[in-house]
Amino acid sequence: MSDSLQLRLYNELDSIVLIDSHSHINPHAPTANSLADLLGYHYYTELAHSSGMDKQLIEEPDISPREKVERLFEHLCNIDNTVQWSWFVELSRELFGFEGDQIDKTNWESVFDLAESKMSGENWEDQVLEASNVEMVFLTNDFDDPLEGFDSQRYVPCLRTDDLVFHLAQPKVRERLEKSTGCTLGKLSDLKQSLEVLFLRFKQRGAKACAISLPPWFSPKCHLGTSHSAQIALDDIIQLGQDASEPNKKLIAEWVFWNIAEFADAFKMPFDLMIGVNRRVYPMGVFQGQDLYDSRLSLIQYADLFNAFPNLLFPISVLASVTNQELVDYAWIFPNVLTHGHWWYSNTPNYIRHDLRGRMEAIPRNKQLGYYSDAYKLEFILPKFRMYKRILADVLASDFCQGRGWTEERAIDLGKQILRGNVEQIFGS
Amino acid sequence: MSDSLQLRLYNELDSIVLIDSHSHINPHAPTANSLADLLGYHYYTELAHSSGMDKQLIEEPDISPREKVERLFEHLCNIDNTVQWSWFVELSRELFGFEGDQIDKTNWESVFDLAESKMSGENWEDQVLEASNVEMVFLTNDFDDPLEGFDSQRYVPCLRTDDLVFHLAQPKVRERLEKSTGCTLGKLSDLKQSLEVLFLRFKQRGAKACAISLPPWFSPKCHLGTSHSAQIALDDIIQLGQDASEPNKKLIAEWVFWNIAEFADAFKMPFDLMIGVNRRVYPMGVFQGQDLYDSRLSLIQYADLFNAFPNLLFPISVLASVTNQELVDYAWIFPNVLTHGHWWYSNTPNYIRHDLRGRMEAIPRNKQLGYYSDAYKLEFILPKFRMYKRILADVLASDFCQGRGWTEERAIDLGKQILRGNVEQIFGS
Amino acid sequence: MSDSLQLRLYNELDSIVLIDSHSHINPHAPTANSLADLLGYHYYTELAHSSGMDKQLIEEPDISPREKVERLFEHLCNIDNTVQWSWFVELSRELFGFEGDQIDKTNWESVFDLAESKMSGENWEDQVLEASNVEMVFLTNDFDDPLEGFDSQRYVPCLRTDDLVFHLAQPKVRERLEKSTGCTLGKLSDLKQSLEVLFLRFKQRGAKACAISLPPWFSPKCHLGTSHSAQIALDDIIQLGQDASEPNKKLIAEWVFWNIAEFADAFKMPFDLMIGVNRRVYPMGVFQGQDLYDSRLSLIQYADLFNAFPNLLFPISVLASVTNQELVDYAWIFPNVLTHGHWWYSNTPNYIRHDLRGRMEAIPRNKQLGYYSDAYKLEFILPKFRMYKRILADVLASDFCQGRGWTEERAIDLGKQILRGNVEQIFGS
Repeated sequence: MSDSLQLRLYNELDSIVLIDSHSHINPHAPTANSLADLLGYHYYTELAHSSGMDKQLIEEPDISPREKVERLFEHLCNIDNTVQWSWFVELSRELFGFEGDQIDKTNWESVFDLAESKMSGENWEDQVLEASNVEMVFLTNDFDDPLEGFDSQRYVPCLRTDDLVFHLAQPKVRERLEKSTGCTLGKLSDLKQSLEVLFLRFKQRGAKACAISLPPWFSPKCHLGTSHSAQIALDDIIQLGQDASEPNKKLIAEWVFWNIAEFADAFKMPFDLMIGVNRRVYPMGVFQGQDLYDSRLSLIQYADLFNAFPNLLFPISVLASVTNQELVDYAWIFPNVLTHGHWWYSNTPNYIRHDLRGRMEAIPRNKQLGYYSDAYKLEFILPKFRMYKRILADVLASDFCQGRGWTEERAIDLGKQILRGNVEQIFGS
Repeated sequence: MSDSLQLRLYNELDSIVLIDSHSHINPHAPTANSLADLLGYHYYTELAHSSGMDKQLIEEPDISPREKVERLFEHLCNIDNTVQWSWFVELSRELFGFEGDQIDKTNWESVFDLAESKMSGENWEDQVLEASNVEMVFLTNDFDDPLEGFDSQRYVPCLRTDDLVFHLAQPKVRERLEKSTGCTLGKLSDLKQSLEVLFLRFKQRGAKACAISLPPWFSPKCHLGTSHSAQIALDDIIQLGQDASEPNKKLIAEWVFWNIAEFADAFKMPFDLMIGVNRRVYPMGVFQGQDLYDSRLSLIQYADLFNAFPNLLFPISVLASVTNQELVDYAWIFPNVLTHGHWWYSNTPNYIRHDLRGRMEAIPRNKQLGYYSDAYKLEFILPKFRMYKRILADVLASDFCQGRGWTEERAIDLGKQILRGNVEQIFGS
Repeated sequence: MSDSLQLRLYNELDSIVLIDSHSHINPHAPTANSLADLLGYHYYTELAHSSGMDKQLIEEPDISPREKVERLFEHLCNIDNTVQWSWFVELSRELFGFEGDQIDKTNWESVFDLAESKMSGENWEDQVLEASNVEMVFLTNDFDDPLEGFDSQRYVPCLRTDDLVFHLAQPKVRERLEKSTGCTLGKLSDLKQSLEVLFLRFKQRGAKACAISLPPWFSPKCHLGTSHSAQIALDDIIQLGQDASEPNKKLIAEWVFWNIAEFADAFKMPFDLMIGVNRRVYPMGVFQGQDLYDSRLSLIQYADLFNAFPNLLFPISVLASVTNQELVDYAWIFPNVLTHGHWWYSNTPNYIRHDLRGRMEAIPRNKQLGYYSDAYKLEFILPKFRMYKRILADVLASDFCQGRGWTEERAIDLGKQILRGNVEQIFGS
């Protein structure tokens, strides 16, 4: 393929102002305070740990950011082959003005200083967003987040529902729910009402979606016609908390999930499903570096849900690339199933490439939400989106311009729709 | 890779006269009557529906072909990225003489008219076959198809057995079986005899294969030594029809399947297995646009079958690309397991490429049946086969000529064997 | 990509002196005696059989090597497309001086004679190792192998544990164990002691690893706290042998496996897990050509094991490419999980390429053991490693030099670490 063709397409795609449809940005502290914040991203700590670093080294209390970074660089040489590391080098070049190709224990301190100087400058947040060509970032908000004190035109609230579905047996979660909604839980109707209060509050604050991450074994079920057993299950978790029976905890998870889908439908908020993660598979791992998965799942587990809510949009992310063909095909058939980004363990070029080509050639173009950053700090939006845009330009050049004789203009239109247009259309943003 | 090398290989492959080893062509109406017949292909209706079209729009009775096409084009802009759409554009250029690159609501009517003019010309069927370089097309015949009134040298009958295996509990299916065979069902021996009558009739009419599509959960089992319980199961479905117990319906499915394999073996008719589809996952979908799948299946479910019938050939198609490596490896080990085409949801370039490369490098060359069209109208044979031939030429150029230093002649020989030679050899056609 | 770049990288990688970390070489007869030994490799016999050869042809007793090869060549034309066949052609060129591109029934005898002449020369073993650039080869030793009479600096013992874990119910296996360890089996403590004797002997003879191949259904479990039921299970298999109950055979498999892990941990011997094979799926197949698999497995079955032995290294091979992403991700998170080669059915370029790219971009560089030959005869080390090195050079060129702007030097360093450095580091060889 002509490299210059690919580069022209890339440059066009890179000029698009982005909406990032899923992140973990804290709107009250959206950027990093030092390199330690960036290298504290779980990708670096878990990979360094996996490569042999004792996690005590970085989890020790009261170490300074500079000391923490120094310690990490004793091990980061072992992960300089990873694409995750390339994100850090690219953002250091683009955002901090670092001019080298490698960052290692011989030169990290100069990058640390560069970063410190930039980060303490005026309007670092604005600078990062501008350099990254981003105008709007979707958040992941706890259900009891007050959603105040930030610009919700820039940072769009999204209701994260994991705690409600999977952790309602924890007394602390029920307390948070009661406190934030003013509903005392006792009957299913109370629980339902508390969910409605949450949806109302989020909707009023401009929320554009609700979201949940789901374990491989989960299969949504409707218990609305069997509320008697659901009430018994709720009684059980209220009385026994985590000691409630597993079937009752599962039944409540299913009941709450289904009710959330009903409210999402009523409030016209797309329901982001992030399917496939097992939590705490490696409990001795670093913070946020303990989750893995079982790739044996099927979207057929969700067929009843998709059928029951024909007007509710489900932007779907899958954790394992082996599930991507099912996602392509369910999005090809079900009007309410959409593909959403390349998630976590599938967010590396080998899997993005294969999964993206599968999507681009078989799913209606108005149903593909190309990419989101999943970032915790704004600085990572730039390199992650660039990784994606390079692959997208590559596929457009080889499969569409070269393979099917498309004009560059037509290919760019498709790329823009996938990168930006569909986000606006689907989330109404 | 040298593009001119790939093009030379493609041109050689494209000059081969084809036998299409699996289609749904109706030999009494093999071509389309209008563009509405072509755009009524489920790929277009289901993708348009998935992209947002109300299915009532096209399922309304008494709309004219022109009106139906006009309505579809309000939505087809959303699927112009798909490879399925590229089939339609390519056939419009090659068969109707359309000269543009895009067909949309601004110019569809000119294509409609071009098609109408061509289709009403003399010998449209012959013209399409000649333009497509096809001399023989395998059919998919209901078991009670009279198999009369068509040229069985051109249109080769194949016995489709899904109804017999999976729907014998339906009174209508049993009536059709009794009527078409003259056997009154009561005992297992009657059922067996009726199957034999079918095989005899199909064989006499030149049938070259029997075929079945199978759900992911199915695992063939031999109940020949346990005919008592099979008789009870048959009694149950005869008395209760669809209300018979699930275990009995399953047992009869297994019993009939195994008996069909025995007759296929006796009559030396390869048994095409199309593995992995769940029917009616999306019951509100358009006609033929309701089926999906659960990719969690293994060919180990078929090991007993392959071992029990060492002389019966099993050309196998799998629905999901994640099953393709198992297919490669079972074909690598079992003499009677053959790879057969790229089926349905795996019939897009991303999956064909990966699956084809896996096959070409590890399965004996005389066991690879490259491609079939699965078409309902002859017009689709040309673009579908061309899509495959481009990928085949690409793999031959990169992996064989470039990668292993093969001469072009040698690569073309391999391509010809996969495209045509093995079809003749294996089906005796 | 620049082909000359790829070639330069390949030449650098090809100059590395290798340690082959897994083979089935017999150190007392490491090379072939004739072409019949090479073409008797199961890849050729099973593929020829699959392509239509009657296995009696080659399993007939008392046929001469020349006769056997002649008979095989009647069928090998059907497998000349396979990558396995390309190994044979490449080794014939590189080791025997064959100068053609194809070996078939018209010219096989000249290759037979060339090979005979070379093999009967002095120091054929040394010549092969030198031509292959190999200095050390890991073996796969039965637990009762006396480990004597060979140079354990060149041929490194590894304890193969399949028989102990899965076949202890066979009286013959228990007899071999008792005889080789001097322990009379009766109590669990005897069994444990016998394992310790084996580990001591292997360690003293320089063993660097223990290894096991595992069926898809196996999931390691710790029964150390439930020794009562384990003792009952041991009693059952001692009394009834193969007729012991399946649950008891499974329990003993789990008990022995866990104890082996404990000794591997204590003796600091990495435990090679080769995950996913079902034995004797096709019992009528040729020798060593009867095994296949069920790709429905997950590494989550091993999570308890990985957590229980944080200091024991697990170099892991998976049989199916669909499991490779899980392997990448478990190696990304668990410090003790390493990727090890490309095994058997996944050892063909299509799957190596996809799996390798997934690994190289996401796993710490010091945790990737690139390749092993799995060879039964030294002659196959050269072509198998070359196949891998070509793909490795290709990925380094396209993804690292071109894609990320790496210098050639840096790319070669990464390649060397994956090919050789990590083997030394991890196995302490």
